[in-house]
Amino acid sequence: MSLLIVGTMAFDTLETPFGKADRIIGGSATYAAWAASNFTKPIRQVSIVGGDFPQAEISELEARGVTFEGVEVVPDGKSFFWSGRYHLDMNTRDTLVTELNVLAQFDPKIPDSYQDAEFVMLGNLAPAVQMSVMQQLKTKPKLTIMDTMNFWMDIALDELKTTLGMVDLLMVNDSEARQLSGEHSIVKAAKKIQAMGPKYVIIKKGEHGALLFYEDKIFSAPALPLEDVFDPTGAGDTFAGGFIGYLARINDTSFESMKAAVIIGSSMASFCVEKFGPNRLKEITAEDIDARVNEFISLANFVIK
Amino acid sequence: MSLLIVGTMAFDTLETPFGKADRIIGGSATYAAWAASNFTKPIRQVSIVGGDFPQAEISELEARGVTFEGVEVVPDGKSFFWSGRYHLDMNTRDTLVTELNVLAQFDPKIPDSYQDAEFVMLGNLAPAVQMSVMQQLKTKPKLTIMDTMNFWMDIALDELKTTLGMVDLLMVNDSEARQLSGEHSIVKAAKKIQAMGPKYVIIKKGEHGALLFYEDKIFSAPALPLEDVFDPTGAGDTFAGGFIGYLARINDTSFESMKAAVIIGSSMASFCVEKFGPNRLKEITAEDIDARVNEFISLANFVIK
Repeated sequence: MSLLIVGTMAFDTLETPFGKADRIIGGSATYAAWAASNFTKPIRQVSIVGGDFPQAEISELEARGVTFEGVEVVPDGKSFFWSGRYHLDMNTRDTLVTELNVLAQFDPKIPDSYQDAEFVMLGNLAPAVQMSVMQQLKTKPKLTIMDTMNFWMDIALDELKTTLGMVDLLMVNDSEARQLSGEHSIVKAAKKIQAMGPKYVIIKKGEHGALLFYEDKIFSAPALPLEDVFDPTGAGDTFAGGFIGYLARINDTSFESMKAAVIIGSSMASFCVEKFGPNRLKEITAEDIDARVNEFISLANFVIK
Repeated sequence: MSLLIVGTMAFDTLETPFGKADRIIGGSATYAAWAASNFTKPIRQVSIVGGDFPQAEISELEARGVTFEGVEVVPDGKSFFWSGRYHLDMNTRDTLVTELNVLAQFDPKIPDSYQDAEFVMLGNLAPAVQMSVMQQLKTKPKLTIMDTMNFWMDIALDELKTTLGMVDLLMVNDSEARQLSGEHSIVKAAKKIQAMGPKYVIIKKGEHGALLFYEDKIFSAPALPLEDVFDPTGAGDTFAGGFIGYLARINDTSFESMKAAVIIGSSMASFCVEKFGPNRLKEITAEDIDARVNEFISLANFVIK
C-alpha cells in the first residue's frame, strides 16, 4: 500500500564515544523512508531541502520506490542542520547546534499523486505542520501515526493536542509520555494520552524496549540487548518507518498486526544504531532483516508447560 | 522435587507513599517459601529466628509443605529487623534501621533430612553463610541459584567470588550486575559474571522486566505494567521462589524451562507488590496464578506473518 511520510531531510554532525561524523545525511523522513522501503512501495515523501542536499541521496531512495514530488527543493537555501553530542551511556545527548534553515519556511503541499496514501507517518515537526498535512488529505487514511517531542509540549501544546485528535497512534519516549500526561506511571500516562485522541499509543523505552497500548490491552516488546550502541541517531524514526512500512505491506491495522509491527520496527532500529547515520540501513538485505526478526523471536518467545 | 531455601525470616517496618506497615513479617526465605509453595513440596527451610517470631507464621508455612527442622530458634534472641522508606518512584528506598539480632550468629546446620534437596536457593546473605550451606550438601544439587547485593561486593568480594564458583545461577538487579562486573553494558556485565562461575545469570530490571543469560542466548521477560505498586518489598525474593519452585515442580533445568520459570517468577512478583509484605501471596489461588501467567502471555506474545 502507498505510504506517506512527512518529516525532515537534513544534515547531522554527531559525536559519540566511538567517534565523530561530520555533516552526514539525517532527518526523520530519511531514516523512516530507508526503513519502510524494505516493506512497501510507493513511499510518498514530504519534506523540504536546500540546494545543498545531495541528489545522489535522493536517487538512492527513488531507486527503492520513494517518490519526491512532495519534497520542496529551495535551490538557494540550506538544509536543516543539527549537531549533537551523546553522553557515555548513549541514552542522553546535548544539542550543540540547531540551524532550521529551510525548515523555518516548511509549509508542505500534498500533491494530488499522494492522495492514494492509506498509511501516513507524521515525523516530529511543528504540530501546525503535521495538522496542515492531515487537513490536505481528501480521504481519511487507514492509519496515521505521529511522533512529537518535549519541545512542542513546551511551546505549542494546544496545537499539539488538536493534532493528536486527528491521528490514530502517537509514538513517544517515556519521558515525553510523562511530560504530555503529567503522570509518572507509564500505564496511567498511556491512558491519558489515549483520552486525548490516539486510540493507540507506543511508548519507547530505549534499551528497555517499547510498550504498545490499545484499549485495555498492552503489548511489551523487548529491545535487542546490544553490547555496544554505535550511534542512536535516527533509531526512533527508523522504528516508526519499519513499524508503518510493515503494516502497509500487510495492509492490516489489527492489534495483533501492530504487535508484530512493533517487533519489525524494533528490528530495524537495532540495525540503525550499528553505524553512523543511515549507513547500516543502506546495507542490509531482506535476509539480514529476517535473521534479526528471528533473534527477536528467540529473545521473547517462551512456552509454559 | 525437594527444594532447599536459605535466607532470612524477619520483621520489617515499611513506609511507602500508600502508608506504613509496622513490624510485619518479612525476610527473603519467607517470601521465597510463600511463592515456591504454590509449585512444589517439600520445601526445606533454613533460617534463624528469635523467640519473638510468631508460631502462627511458621504453622501457615508448614501447612503448605515447608519444613522447619533447619530453622534455628533462639528463644531469648530477637529476629532480624529491617526498616525502610520507599521514595515516590518506588524504585529507590532508604534504609532507616537494620538490626541484625540473631542473624549476626547465623551459622546454618543442614539437617540430614534436607540432603534430598535437588533444587537450592541461596537468598541474599553473607557469602560465607551461602558457601557453608553448599559445603554441607553431600551431593551436588541439580540446580543452585543465589542472590546477593552490593553490600557484599563492598565488604566480602573475595568470598562472594568463591561462592559464585559453587552455584549455577546468579540473580541480581541491574545496578548490582554493573557493580560486580565493572561493566555498564548489561550484556557485557552478564558475560563477565558468567566467567566468574554461574552458567546462568538473571538480571532484574524492576519495571522493565528481567533478562536471562545462558551461553550466548538471551531471554527478555517483560514486567507487568502496573498502574500502582503498593509495596515492592520482597518482590525479588518472590521472583526467585516462583522461579525455582516452578523448575522443581517440572524437574527440568533446560534453558527453555528457565524462560518459562522467569515468567512464573515475574507473575509471582507482580502479586507480591499489590499489598504490604507477603499478604497478597497468602491470598492467591492456583486460578489467580494461571490468570496472571496468561496476562504475561498476552503481554509478550506476537506472531510475524
